[in-house]
Amino acid sequence: MPRIDAERFLRDLNDLRQIGAYKTGVHRPTYSPQDMESRRWLMERMAEIGLEPSIDGIGNVYGRHKGPGPHLLVGSHIESQNYAGWLDGALGVVAGLALARAGLPVDVCAFADEEGHFEGGFLGSRSIIGELSEEEIDRSRSRNDGTPLREALAAAGLAGKPRMTLEPGRHKGFFEMHIEQGRVLESSGLRIGVVTGIVAIWQYRIVFEGQQNHAGTTTMAERRDAGLSAIRLLARIDEEFPRVAAERSVWTAGRITLDPGAPSIIPGRAEVLFQFRDVSPEVLERMDAALRALVRESNRREKCPATIEQMSRATPALCDPAMMAALDAAAEEEAPGAWSRMPSGAGHDAQYIAKRMPVAMLFPPSIGGISHHWTEDTKPEDLALACQVLANGAARFLAA
Amino acid sequence: MPRIDAERFLRDLNDLRQIGAYKTGVHRPTYSPQDMESRRWLMERMAEIGLEPSIDGIGNVYGRHKGPGPHLLVGSHIESQNYAGWLDGALGVVAGLALARAGLPVDVCAFADEEGHFEGGFLGSRSIIGELSEEEIDRSRSRNDGTPLREALAAAGLAGKPRMTLEPGRHKGFFEMHIEQGRVLESSGLRIGVVTGIVAIWQYRIVFEGQQNHAGTTTMAERRDAGLSAIRLLARIDEEFPRVAAERSVWTAGRITLDPGAPSIIPGRAEVLFQFRDVSPEVLERMDAALRALVRESNRREKCPATIEQMSRATPALCDPAMMAALDAAAEEEAPGAWSRMPSGAGHDAQYIAKRMPVAMLFPPSIGGISHHWTEDTKPEDLALACQVLANGAARFLAA
Repeated sequence: MPRIDAERFLRDLNDLRQIGAYKTGVHRPTYSPQDMESRRWLMERMAEIGLEPSIDGIGNVYGRHKGPGPHLLVGSHIESQNYAGWLDGALGVVAGLALARAGLPVDVCAFADEEGHFEGGFLGSRSIIGELSEEEIDRSRSRNDGTPLREALAAAGLAGKPRMTLEPGRHKGFFEMHIEQGRVLESSGLRIGVVTGIVAIWQYRIVFEGQQNHAGTTTMAERRDAGLSAIRLLARIDEEFPRVAAERSVWTAGRITLDPGAPSIIPGRAEVLFQFRDVSPEVLERMDAALRALVRESNRREKCPATIEQMSRATPALCDPAMMAALDAAAEEEAPGAWSRMPSGAGHDAQYIAKRMPVAMLFPPSIGGISHHWTEDTKPEDLALACQVLANGAARFLAA
Repeated sequence: MPRIDAERFLRDLNDLRQIGAYKTGVHRPTYSPQDMESRRWLMERMAEIGLEPSIDGIGNVYGRHKGPGPHLLVGSHIESQNYAGWLDGALGVVAGLALARAGLPVDVCAFADEEGHFEGGFLGSRSIIGELSEEEIDRSRSRNDGTPLREALAAAGLAGKPRMTLEPGRHKGFFEMHIEQGRVLESSGLRIGVVTGIVAIWQYRIVFEGQQNHAGTTTMAERRDAGLSAIRLLARIDEEFPRVAAERSVWTAGRITLDPGAPSIIPGRAEVLFQFRDVSPEVLERMDAALRALVRESNRREKCPATIEQMSRATPALCDPAMMAALDAAAEEEAPGAWSRMPSGAGHDAQYIAKRMPVAMLFPPSIGGISHHWTEDTKPEDLALACQVLANGAARFLAA
């Protein structure tokens, strides 16, 4: 089995942490000077290890293994959420370097904008599988400040560069190591999660149309309060969803907007952003049907008609059984009894790469389950353990 | 009984409508050039009628009757909400001119900023009863664009002018005519409302503290979703309030803010602005107790603690029985069977003037119940009728 250089792996992670450092985390939004500096840093590391580095027109950094195959693809993303953690994304990229350094035949990649600083998100992984159109690039704008994506690419020196796509048949599979971003491992005292699949997010916009009116002079009987209709629907979802969801399903109303949102005005319009996630297509269909039934029930009962629009309807990405088996064996070897299989509740680049090759993911625990915040952290011994398990798993899968 | 000059009354209203005209309504935010032009127009009309006009340091316009008393005070406000109706406020001021023109011994007033373009609101009526401090003026800013009130007063040429207060003992009472701003009269086929009192608004900020977290990786059991706790409380209010409220009580959740308000983030904080209104102190106390009991219940049941802060706790302003009786008789005389007593669900300058003298209010109907919008309107015959009823009522009250 290959041995990774744990000290060098942790030093690389800490070196990268200096770029865009913010408190104990980092601020490296996609195509910012800090983000581009981190991409140049990555290409220098790749070259040192003997990989052939390149950057493409969407900002993907790719380190190509020069030797013979079969090859693996290993990586994640290198930009961060705003003022967020040092490991999210960066961990999987630096783990790729560690595997290459240990002599494994891996191409290492950092996909651009997994974090979705620009509309659309997952720009790099969607581009490399050929699912990002020029039209979408023309349209997309920064969610932070509205800058057109084209302008941001030009400012980053990427305008006019070709966009790479995966070489068909080159890779036996893609491994992505990523922090868990939840508390499942920590609360069970485990050190490694072998991911079974990446849940799909089904997201909806539910809009209630009422009648904006004076909150003093409009009697309760006369009102058509769109906010109240929204509250009643959300309360019904809260009652019904536990009956139709699976054990690990999650559902969230992350935004409620009442229009105009003034204390003395009856809301004339209410908008709810609602989503649920599961790894099973059947469970997703069941939750979708329950939601639509509740909206129909609302429309029979309420004076404010509700319309529901599905904004996204992804397919769960299942991890490859042979790759999972290799990771299981590696985890049991390095951390006997201290690992478990689990779904990924968050989205990852692997869900797109899965459209082109087998994929697998590995999680070390997140302290306190915190992510997307500068306090995000993982114990160094857990980072090193996960990287060694990834290396062993990759070697087992290549040998299988 | 005095006869008003209905034609002249309607012409005055339409002349005033030209100042800051917007579609069929007006845009005269407090201290804007349009608002100040309307105040100068009003002072000219006062002078024509033989009233002694003045404007004070908060923008109150006052037309003092030169003859002997007992006097009445008649008026309302002259600025408008943004892009709003031509009658709201202006009607009561121009009715005051009509009464003075008909020979009644009235002082006519237009109180500044009833509409609350500046923080605090009701600046003029609060100033004239001595309940607006210099410190509050120092602090207050425009809710439209943040301009400090002091700057706005200076730009309007009002800096340094003294602020008038009511002359104790001068007035037997204050009459305010105002559009209804609701559909009670119209839906009952009535033409006049004699107001029994102005409801008090009790307003609350309810804040739920949860734990902001990733909407994919945080299990339902682990979550502390502040938005969900807020929804459950609002659903309970929706169930319980009909049991404790009175027939004409109203309650409104006009704003719900989830923080950070992103589709994939569990809300870590939720804030609800909630208010209720009634004309009865007992009913207000009952609703307050019910709300606090529901918040306690929420805190026993939910993982996100809720705190409730009462932002305003006004006293209902009851109209004077003798003034109401005079208006009843005048209404029955001019519009037999086509009038009713009713509370005012909206706030009015009269609620502050009621702290210094007896007050009464009279409503003509609002077409479609619309107000605070440029489509606000009332039939001219209803306007003229209401003005005549006001004149007769004022004469009856003076004679009583």
